[in-house]
Amino acid sequence: MLRIPFEELRSRLERILLQHGFTADRAAACARMFAETSRDGVYSHGLNRFPVFVSLIQSGIVRPDAEPELVDAMGPIERWDGRLGPGNLNATFAMGRAITLAKQHGLGLVALRNTNHWMRAGSYGWQAAEAGCIGICWTNTMPNMPAWGGRDSKLGNNPLVLSVPRERGPIVLDIAMSQYSYGKLHTYILNEEQLPFDGGYDEDGRLTRDPAAITKSRRPLPIGYWKGSGLSLMLDLIAVLLSGGLSTMEVGRLPNAKEYALSQVFLAIDCGRLPDRGELQARVEAILDDLHQSLPVDESSGRVRYPGEGVLKTRAANLEHGIPVDESIWKQVLDM
Amino acid sequence: MLRIPFEELRSRLERILLQHGFTADRAAACARMFAETSRDGVYSHGLNRFPVFVSLIQSGIVRPDAEPELVDAMGPIERWDGRLGPGNLNATFAMGRAITLAKQHGLGLVALRNTNHWMRAGSYGWQAAEAGCIGICWTNTMPNMPAWGGRDSKLGNNPLVLSVPRERGPIVLDIAMSQYSYGKLHTYILNEEQLPFDGGYDEDGRLTRDPAAITKSRRPLPIGYWKGSGLSLMLDLIAVLLSGGLSTMEVGRLPNAKEYALSQVFLAIDCGRLPDRGELQARVEAILDDLHQSLPVDESSGRVRYPGEGVLKTRAANLEHGIPVDESIWKQVLDM
Repeated sequence: MLRIPFEELRSRLERILLQHGFTADRAAACARMFAETSRDGVYSHGLNRFPVFVSLIQSGIVRPDAEPELVDAMGPIERWDGRLGPGNLNATFAMGRAITLAKQHGLGLVALRNTNHWMRAGSYGWQAAEAGCIGICWTNTMPNMPAWGGRDSKLGNNPLVLSVPRERGPIVLDIAMSQYSYGKLHTYILNEEQLPFDGGYDEDGRLTRDPAAITKSRRPLPIGYWKGSGLSLMLDLIAVLLSGGLSTMEVGRLPNAKEYALSQVFLAIDCGRLPDRGELQARVEAILDDLHQSLPVDESSGRVRYPGEGVLKTRAANLEHGIPVDESIWKQVLDM
Repeated sequence: MLRIPFEELRSRLERILLQHGFTADRAAACARMFAETSRDGVYSHGLNRFPVFVSLIQSGIVRPDAEPELVDAMGPIERWDGRLGPGNLNATFAMGRAITLAKQHGLGLVALRNTNHWMRAGSYGWQAAEAGCIGICWTNTMPNMPAWGGRDSKLGNNPLVLSVPRERGPIVLDIAMSQYSYGKLHTYILNEEQLPFDGGYDEDGRLTRDPAAITKSRRPLPIGYWKGSGLSLMLDLIAVLLSGGLSTMEVGRLPNAKEYALSQVFLAIDCGRLPDRGELQARVEAILDDLHQSLPVDESSGRVRYPGEGVLKTRAANLEHGIPVDESIWKQVLDM
């Protein structure tokens, strides 16, 4: 497997962004986020996504120089217009504002309209937690999942992030509302593997673990069946109300059949002002210790883990040995 | 099926509470909530739960006269101690405070410690939405679900509620983190039915739709497998951090092996101050209309519904024809 040092990956992406209309600061920040995403093991939303990102810039959908603009300020709540800027820069800015508002008011909520795919959802959970805040954020997407009881995609898979600060490394949950993303399904197809659990319906309406049958029927399964379907709808509705931006339905009706002009919500709650914060850290550790003492399902399955637990280990390994890259994508990037 | 008029149910419950240490105001409010929960079709957490509630009062676990006490006030965030009062009164109070804070600051967050089972989770979503607020709230529970990869119950099923105000009736999602509650599993066992979807593992570690096998293994399935497991943990951690109250683990170690002294979070966001609130209502309707136009899975399955859509219809029917009651439970209540 080809492994590339972090700094080589980061600087290569930075140089490409500089050729595509990014200012120096923004190229550095955006390239760093892509490289860090691969460094942390979320390959699908790091380097692997970069060529698509560049093509969206070239087609004018992502606007490298567009910075968010304040629409409404209501104390601890703010609304911003992302002006179709790069999704990861916009989202970092929005969570940053939510953190600033949280330090000021105790909690802060930023609703962002008219933004682009934020790449790795978990990034903004890490950002909040590293600033000492509980973070809750989500995005809507284009329609890519049927509602429960329906056959055609009316809902987005609307990734949701919850994070908790912790001295020994944040706890970060990053989940889409579909059991498996289309990206994951394609990985299983390429590897000629069946899914470990039912992931959707085949064209005859039977639950299936066959990833190809699901990409054909376009009926991926929401997490928890009717529950994930409902949750996806609520996240979309709340994002639309708070941001005033487009809904999943409206994103699905945009020209080009591309995914852009999304709506997102960022909530940060400052743990620094909780009077018992020292004691609380010890209690969080006790909960994680108890979780780790779960009786494993079987000998081979190993210790139960908390969300985000594997990241620091993957990060350390990838910094030491280099970041594993898909050779064809790396070649594409070298040719840019 | 035995049906009882709403007013008869409500006043009967009220009289019993008056005999168990409730003041007049609190007996009226508490009885109304139980009766309204059955009226809205959530029978498991209305009348059916009432005898258990009374027995918890008799054993001193639920304290009828205990009112919440302010612990910390930090602008739009408040912490309250529920002092082991009735869970539904405490939760109504807490969401009420969150709404008041939201009207003042734009959003309000109340964290409640040391409270009791709040009965129907959705009640507090309806409460927020009827006050013109987006509502988000959750509770932890005693351990009743293994973490993903584990065999013993380390997590709670931690019900989560999201609600959105709407002129034509709120949209309210009310979901526990287990695919089926133990209560639901027992209903399937009583009716000698299999679950429509996998609901957990049997004692040999195989996914099963047999409700009896799951109550035996005590391994109900989290929604979305690893995703609901992670979400349950995050909800518990955030509730503990914000309220300073007990975690699911700690509730599981209380004397009596009963479920009490829970931790809850109530977030309200005021939609009344959104500058485009009129237009937003129309956009919410458009999203729901689009959802309703989903191609149904099959002819018999009917129109796709939004969360909470069935409630107003059930409510109207139950007000007209009386509320269906379990005869043995109604007899128990008449004998109290």
